[in-house]
Amino acid sequence: MNQSAPSPFTAADYRARMDRAALTASAAGLAGLLVSPGPDLVWLTGYRPTAMTERLTLLVLPVAGDPVLVVPKLECADAVKAPGAPSLDLRDWTDGVDPYGLVSPLVDAAGTFGVSDSTWALHLLALQGELPRAGFRALTEALPMLRAVKDEAELARLTAAGAAADATFEEIKKVAFAGRREADVAADLDRLLREFGHEQVDFTVVGSGPNGADPHHEADDRVIQHGDTVVLDFGGLMYGYGSDTTRTVQVGDPGEEVRRVHAVVREAQQAGFEAVRPGAACQDVDRAARRVIEDAGYGEYFIHRTGHGIGTTTHEPPYMIEGEQQELVPGMCFSIEPGVYLPGRFGVRIEDIVTVTQNGGVRLNNTDHGLTVVG
Amino acid sequence: MNQSAPSPFTAADYRARMDRAALTASAAGLAGLLVSPGPDLVWLTGYRPTAMTERLTLLVLPVAGDPVLVVPKLECADAVKAPGAPSLDLRDWTDGVDPYGLVSPLVDAAGTFGVSDSTWALHLLALQGELPRAGFRALTEALPMLRAVKDEAELARLTAAGAAADATFEEIKKVAFAGRREADVAADLDRLLREFGHEQVDFTVVGSGPNGADPHHEADDRVIQHGDTVVLDFGGLMYGYGSDTTRTVQVGDPGEEVRRVHAVVREAQQAGFEAVRPGAACQDVDRAARRVIEDAGYGEYFIHRTGHGIGTTTHEPPYMIEGEQQELVPGMCFSIEPGVYLPGRFGVRIEDIVTVTQNGGVRLNNTDHGLTVVG
Repeated sequence: MNQSAPSPFTAADYRARMDRAALTASAAGLAGLLVSPGPDLVWLTGYRPTAMTERLTLLVLPVAGDPVLVVPKLECADAVKAPGAPSLDLRDWTDGVDPYGLVSPLVDAAGTFGVSDSTWALHLLALQGELPRAGFRALTEALPMLRAVKDEAELARLTAAGAAADATFEEIKKVAFAGRREADVAADLDRLLREFGHEQVDFTVVGSGPNGADPHHEADDRVIQHGDTVVLDFGGLMYGYGSDTTRTVQVGDPGEEVRRVHAVVREAQQAGFEAVRPGAACQDVDRAARRVIEDAGYGEYFIHRTGHGIGTTTHEPPYMIEGEQQELVPGMCFSIEPGVYLPGRFGVRIEDIVTVTQNGGVRLNNTDHGLTVVG
Repeated sequence: MNQSAPSPFTAADYRARMDRAALTASAAGLAGLLVSPGPDLVWLTGYRPTAMTERLTLLVLPVAGDPVLVVPKLECADAVKAPGAPSLDLRDWTDGVDPYGLVSPLVDAAGTFGVSDSTWALHLLALQGELPRAGFRALTEALPMLRAVKDEAELARLTAAGAAADATFEEIKKVAFAGRREADVAADLDRLLREFGHEQVDFTVVGSGPNGADPHHEADDRVIQHGDTVVLDFGGLMYGYGSDTTRTVQVGDPGEEVRRVHAVVREAQQAGFEAVRPGAACQDVDRAARRVIEDAGYGEYFIHRTGHGIGTTTHEPPYMIEGEQQELVPGMCFSIEPGVYLPGRFGVRIEDIVTVTQNGGVRLNNTDHGLTVVG
């Protein structure tokens, strides 16, 4: 990793995103956006409070008028340092004051608002009480494409995060697997991701043997055995943007069935990748990958969608799933991660982040797709 | 820390909590509780999914009828291992299915439900769409005392967590402050909390000099200077229960004003503590502490409430704040943490976790309240 850090986003960058969000909201018939701490707030303002709590922090972004950040007084000193703060009117409130009452004068009380997905129910219910005539929609349903198309500076970050995840895989191949606990290998993944530049690690799945058949198994005290198939799925944030890659490795000789299943998943991943082109629907990517697995007779063991978007969070629209007719647009970034999970036995998954270009998909993960044998 | 780990909570413990929650909900006129991943779900079922995501995981706890856990199929293998799972009917759902439709047949569609505070707006809005005749209230507003009174097994965990935080403070006093970055001292706090038994560290505030006047400042690259006053506020989870303590230390000679402010805050903390007895109101604790600071002329610089409850999370009801008339009950546990923050100069805060007994308050943090001089 000899890359230098990208230039930070500027106040003007955040202002442009807020302006674009307001325009997009207006076009969708919304009166504005209500954004609490999380990936949308980071993307719009650069502000990432230390913790999400019961104290209201809320970006009020009306379609007409200036954006306002409602913030607890004791976090105001931090908020004012956010890179997007120069474009924000900060309104602080003190414990004991009703913060929701600060919101209603700022907006059209009869409008419909996009609310960031992870806003706490505590806050949404209070806002609904404060604005009884207003409507509320989840932000990713109202404006699913708001953050989906990445610009060059965002792509550079996602590319760097992908390269760091790849470097992590190249190193983890060299560690001992047999005789160590899954949790120990997971700790290695965590350390390596940070060494290669991640500021945050979100998941380090080490699913050995039967644990690999549980797609969201993280890592536990199971001691990895010679002969195990091991699913490694890891990622986090680097320069504020996500990585997420999966490779399946084999401790010693894989045997015939593991080889066969792995080859099927590899072919499915490739088929999903080849379905990527501008104008294709998200569900086309899912269908292409799923068909390979179904044709091989493993359809019932592929129990999740084929992929999800990635950006300032590791799960976001667009989703590669049956029924999703959203068209692919250059600059979108998402995972393609088919898998086969044989209960009680083993699992296989292969995952790359892919970005859409005029000429089709480009992978941001580029480690070998073969079944790597480890020690 | 020579204590042995407490016995894990059993399936029967979780069943008893769920039964009690259903009774409490019924008495409050609710039709049931809807609980997504977070401290309430951990308390009721012992289930802590790897991550909160856009995929719905929801405990449906009707006041009559058995509790059901709606869970994504790919997380089902983890959910079934939760210690409370034997009392739960698990309903899994696969990507592409509408999971909200699973909820409505389980409940009184015209009832009012308590929804866990941190449930995502994405999920609440979908549930509101699915149950248009139902009412929804935030769980801590509908049933603020649900988890507030701790039983003996919970108190043992909170006591152990407090002792580990105290041991951390005793060690941090010995490290070098002057010439090191706040972030380095914060890393020491993190390491020490884990060494003394914490499985999770939630915050490590190191607020030196002017940064100490920002109550929620975490720690940054500021190099601590000789002469600085430094606020240390740290905690996390041990055996699933929280710690949270604050001490203010001085690098070298404090000087007259720091001594005076520290003495005022110490006296305020003691006054808050002495106000703790069964039957007193939460606001009495706040008033007792605040009066000392106001009488000393620093009232405008005490810009937050005096305390918050603690349990499976580090911020929960009851809150020690003006207007909170909830009576104190033996078994409640909360912080008493007055502070004075002089903008651009320094801050002082002293915080202990206190539990209510028949005979008044008992501190779960017991390190010296004096102004400790560090190197």
